[in-house]
Amino acid sequence: MRSFITDDFLLQTKTARQLYHEYAEPMPIYDYHCHLPARQIAEDHCFENLTQAWLYGDHYKWRAMRTHGVAETMITGNASDYDKFVKWAETVPYTMRNPLYHWTHLELKRYFGIDLLLGPETAERIFEACSELLKTPEFSVRHLLRKMQVKVLCTTEDPTDTLAHHRQIREDGTDVRVHTAWRADKALGAENPQSLNSWIDALQETANVQIGSYPALLEALQKRHDEFHAAGCRLSDFGLETVYAAPYTEKEIFEIFEKLRLSRSVSAAELLKYKSAVLYDLAAMDARSGWTLQLHLGALRNTNTKIMELLGADTGCDSIGDFEIARPLAAFLDRLNREDLLPKTILYNLNPRDNELMATMIGNFQDGSIPGKMQYGSAWWFLDQKDGMEKQIEALSNLGLLSRFVGMLTDSRSFLSFPRHEYFRRILCNRIGSDVEQGLLPSDLEWLGGMVQDICWHNARNYFDMECD
Amino acid sequence: MRSFITDDFLLQTKTARQLYHEYAEPMPIYDYHCHLPARQIAEDHCFENLTQAWLYGDHYKWRAMRTHGVAETMITGNASDYDKFVKWAETVPYTMRNPLYHWTHLELKRYFGIDLLLGPETAERIFEACSELLKTPEFSVRHLLRKMQVKVLCTTEDPTDTLAHHRQIREDGTDVRVHTAWRADKALGAENPQSLNSWIDALQETANVQIGSYPALLEALQKRHDEFHAAGCRLSDFGLETVYAAPYTEKEIFEIFEKLRLSRSVSAAELLKYKSAVLYDLAAMDARSGWTLQLHLGALRNTNTKIMELLGADTGCDSIGDFEIARPLAAFLDRLNREDLLPKTILYNLNPRDNELMATMIGNFQDGSIPGKMQYGSAWWFLDQKDGMEKQIEALSNLGLLSRFVGMLTDSRSFLSFPRHEYFRRILCNRIGSDVEQGLLPSDLEWLGGMVQDICWHNARNYFDMECD
Amino acid sequence: MRSFITDDFLLQTKTARQLYHEYAEPMPIYDYHCHLPARQIAEDHCFENLTQAWLYGDHYKWRAMRTHGVAETMITGNASDYDKFVKWAETVPYTMRNPLYHWTHLELKRYFGIDLLLGPETAERIFEACSELLKTPEFSVRHLLRKMQVKVLCTTEDPTDTLAHHRQIREDGTDVRVHTAWRADKALGAENPQSLNSWIDALQETANVQIGSYPALLEALQKRHDEFHAAGCRLSDFGLETVYAAPYTEKEIFEIFEKLRLSRSVSAAELLKYKSAVLYDLAAMDARSGWTLQLHLGALRNTNTKIMELLGADTGCDSIGDFEIARPLAAFLDRLNREDLLPKTILYNLNPRDNELMATMIGNFQDGSIPGKMQYGSAWWFLDQKDGMEKQIEALSNLGLLSRFVGMLTDSRSFLSFPRHEYFRRILCNRIGSDVEQGLLPSDLEWLGGMVQDICWHNARNYFDMECD
Repeated sequence: MRSFITDDFLLQTKTARQLYHEYAEPMPIYDYHCHLPARQIAEDHCFENLTQAWLYGDHYKWRAMRTHGVAETMITGNASDYDKFVKWAETVPYTMRNPLYHWTHLELKRYFGIDLLLGPETAERIFEACSELLKTPEFSVRHLLRKMQVKVLCTTEDPTDTLAHHRQIREDGTDVRVHTAWRADKALGAENPQSLNSWIDALQETANVQIGSYPALLEALQKRHDEFHAAGCRLSDFGLETVYAAPYTEKEIFEIFEKLRLSRSVSAAELLKYKSAVLYDLAAMDARSGWTLQLHLGALRNTNTKIMELLGADTGCDSIGDFEIARPLAAFLDRLNREDLLPKTILYNLNPRDNELMATMIGNFQDGSIPGKMQYGSAWWFLDQKDGMEKQIEALSNLGLLSRFVGMLTDSRSFLSFPRHEYFRRILCNRIGSDVEQGLLPSDLEWLGGMVQDICWHNARNYFDMECD
Repeated sequence: MRSFITDDFLLQTKTARQLYHEYAEPMPIYDYHCHLPARQIAEDHCFENLTQAWLYGDHYKWRAMRTHGVAETMITGNASDYDKFVKWAETVPYTMRNPLYHWTHLELKRYFGIDLLLGPETAERIFEACSELLKTPEFSVRHLLRKMQVKVLCTTEDPTDTLAHHRQIREDGTDVRVHTAWRADKALGAENPQSLNSWIDALQETANVQIGSYPALLEALQKRHDEFHAAGCRLSDFGLETVYAAPYTEKEIFEIFEKLRLSRSVSAAELLKYKSAVLYDLAAMDARSGWTLQLHLGALRNTNTKIMELLGADTGCDSIGDFEIARPLAAFLDRLNREDLLPKTILYNLNPRDNELMATMIGNFQDGSIPGKMQYGSAWWFLDQKDGMEKQIEALSNLGLLSRFVGMLTDSRSFLSFPRHEYFRRILCNRIGSDVEQGLLPSDLEWLGGMVQDICWHNARNYFDMECD
Repeated sequence: MRSFITDDFLLQTKTARQLYHEYAEPMPIYDYHCHLPARQIAEDHCFENLTQAWLYGDHYKWRAMRTHGVAETMITGNASDYDKFVKWAETVPYTMRNPLYHWTHLELKRYFGIDLLLGPETAERIFEACSELLKTPEFSVRHLLRKMQVKVLCTTEDPTDTLAHHRQIREDGTDVRVHTAWRADKALGAENPQSLNSWIDALQETANVQIGSYPALLEALQKRHDEFHAAGCRLSDFGLETVYAAPYTEKEIFEIFEKLRLSRSVSAAELLKYKSAVLYDLAAMDARSGWTLQLHLGALRNTNTKIMELLGADTGCDSIGDFEIARPLAAFLDRLNREDLLPKTILYNLNPRDNELMATMIGNFQDGSIPGKMQYGSAWWFLDQKDGMEKQIEALSNLGLLSRFVGMLTDSRSFLSFPRHEYFRRILCNRIGSDVEQGLLPSDLEWLGGMVQDICWHNARNYFDMECD
């Protein structure tokens, strides 16, 4: 059988192939949003085998295995790494038409040079070959990043993080620029006053600020925000069901915070006010520091209590929700804008039914200050496939300026996920190439190739304004 | 003019044609969800003419005729069967691009061998030819099913149904396995206490249980559930706007039920609690019996009061609604799952904007116990066309495992609707074939052909676990 | 470089090309919904330069320029017309894949015969050439309409408009039939009692009716409605977030109106009742006069307070909303239908996620009285591109009768926007042509060509029943 992942994988036309090979392929990767563990980069970790590098923590694969009828012990349980791998290999042929099928074979080829299709018959060979390589220093995590031409990478840290690993990485002077991104979701988590207070206690300690009032909370957050800034951070990130934008007074927030700090429960209306205040104040902080604010809307999280109790969060039991988006989002952005505190903002949605809503919302707040100040962000997580990416590209093209797009991100917890940038680039070039061959765009390769390179690299570099070689 | 329905109808590539003709076409039909009248199967009914077989009760055609400007008398009124047919024939050329255009010509060809296009000029010829055939014993309803290779078929009955027709069918030993499916929607219909009570009175009688309390209601339902089970039923079905999953206490439900039984009205909150309880208890019943639960969400029913008063329900005045789905659905499934009472479940949506939501929701509750325990069901009713099916296939492929899909159903009230399985199979093969020819899937016909056969037949047979020689 | 806008632009197949060139292209334009200023038609206005004709008032272009990083002074501010044009020209290459890219070059070619691609290098040449032509009498606005074969055109006026411009146009006996359409949105604007009362005062004057009560409001509106009717108007138009259909009593409305007239604020519930009453009463007025009611649902307006204060409404800060549509819409239509007061109605949605909902909703209320009485309207504003139009055509085809569709409209404020009809026609023919070549439709050009001509012209002419030479 001929190789599955060919040079022209996903590229249906001559123009698409030219755009990809001549323009997109040579560009380095700017992965401004991922969940790689900074510790592993600091330690330049080596994996012992392919299961550790590929299956530990990858809830995409877990969901597929559960669907395939694999028992939890063989997925997240006590089974051996090899046995787990075999179960995954048995599942792979059944993932046909799922992005996992493409990712799997792209990753085998790009990192390990393997052209075989993964399945029960090839499981052992592939496991052995990859595991062998992974143990060598040339397959340490920093080498894995280098192999994929990753030049800039942003991990995600909580405000309570000391950023020690990032200091280590910086001191090592790696050729991959590793920045942190600020993820302060926990500051909003007032549904559960106990866990909110534990988090505030931790913040109190890291920031060295006594937090007895709402202003003190903001002071501590600002202090950490400044320290993240000093460490090179220029990016924040919130994952929310929808935006919180209820009206409130300062006095109300002070009182609600006092109740929360005493671990008293608050009403639904108070909860919404509190969240609205924190979200606003953190966005304003981003604006004052010239950061970019990322808002990811629409995930319904931790739906399966049994698995939540067994394995915790981020274990494959989140799904796409159907929350009201437009009105609160517009109110939130408008308030910041009125007060000249609207930061550069990237809006992401998880439910693709909201694509067009998002792509028009950004247009309301573009202000000419910088190109593409308001971004409609790329398709990731459940939307990280040909269909999802094409729909995002289509919505952004039709309703905004694709040419000003800051491009793809992995959102991944795995060092083997970087071919998702390649995947995106091929899909992007294929889309533009097909337009050219249908006469929907003039056949001016230099112009279009330039746009492609902007989307792959230049736009992100200019937009985020982070240190970058 | 050459034949419109060719052998390769809907099959755009060589691979698609191979997949369909070599793998899909020979497979029998497992129609696990339809609304055929069991009485007509029991009596092995013969239709007098094509209008009776085709236009009586087919609200798809009625809607098209009303849109075309045909008066109600010529659709559901007193006009002669022939005159009605002529009006339908006049409408057909105006249904271009509507699935009715395809279904019409597929059905004429598959059942009657007719290759003509239906229109005013061919109306008489086609009416005469088909009506002639329909009157012969070889076109009795059982023969119509046999012609289409239907091996298993599930009709839908209310818990108050005695299943006498099914006993008759079973005694006759037909080669088509005809099972019943349990449709207990009326148990939830507490908006109207009068009609709820009439239904409970009927249930009281069939179950021979005095129903004076909520536990007695459950007892009667359980008794009928057991009798359905004994008759071979393994499947229930609910058609709801959205899922009901409000919290409640047993005591509340007992009291609400007492009010209802006294035909007193209940508040909106009480109504929701009552519905939540009944839905939960019936789902739990399914789980205990190893049945599959079907939930169809999103129809807005009986919107046209005038037609409702004239013709009753299911007469073409339902449409697609926009209800909140994710949160209550997740809560409902989670509660069952926590209590180890989550049955095999098929989720269907009517609004295609919810496709991705549905396709991710099932992933949250896959537990590895059996392959594809949670199913994202096929596109039917308003979505039963190329576009709707392709979107369902796409969402399921991208977000779950298409390979584990239990496949198509007709949801039909007509014995002439079975080519909809062929329609689905051609679309499925076309989609996979086009992936292969674009290099998105390896060209391994045996592997893909096997998957296609699973989706056409094997998955359903294994999943539902119904008698099926 | 060869010409970008070729004869076969957007037409991918031979059948598509035949359908377009032989059937669609020769048909005149029936633009039943636009926002052209009647005054400019009455005065047969000539523009001084291309900026005035193209950029003044075109918020599509403004949004693109803001996104591109152009400062507001160069868009809507004090910069010279030429400097503004240069900024637009710089933006154009960055609009690749946005409909603006296509519209721009279609308009340059169709009105001015210019085949150059607009960009910084061609800006001056194009500005000079077009401005030169625009100053000549052959490029007056009436000539611009003639060039595009516009035969019927409906502008939009408020009930307080005296229709003086329309009288002028009629007296001049232009070859383009210019009608008014009734836009009474301001009658619903009770959120702001002050501005409602200013509007009622103006209505009082134009209608010469003292408006001290709700019945007097209706009397004044009916009087103006009759005068619009006498002037040839047969069409009304509402732009709403969603439909208002709360229950109310006459007495409640009388009292709410009294409060409003005294500029007292009303509760949210009262506001909804008031809007429900006005919307119902105005729709009933349309029904009694044989008019067509247009409902456009789903825009979230004036989201950017800063721009609103600077530039006012309709300046590029509206976006797509996510309102509940189905239940209130069904209730509204059902009430009118029950009372035999449901007018011919066109439903438009702005959020494409509601396409299928809309396309099924119309089916519930088709009554056979005239073909396509209930219409699912065309894709305009944010949806006025290949993708949006194809989705609307697809939804209508799958769920209704495309053959009975009244077709495209511009919704434009610019005399240079009429090639959007050509754009739609090419997309329509391309879609049908591709179906034929894929075997999804019989290859009967005469039949399909007839349908295309119906959609381009005949359906609208028959449906609206307006004077049309």
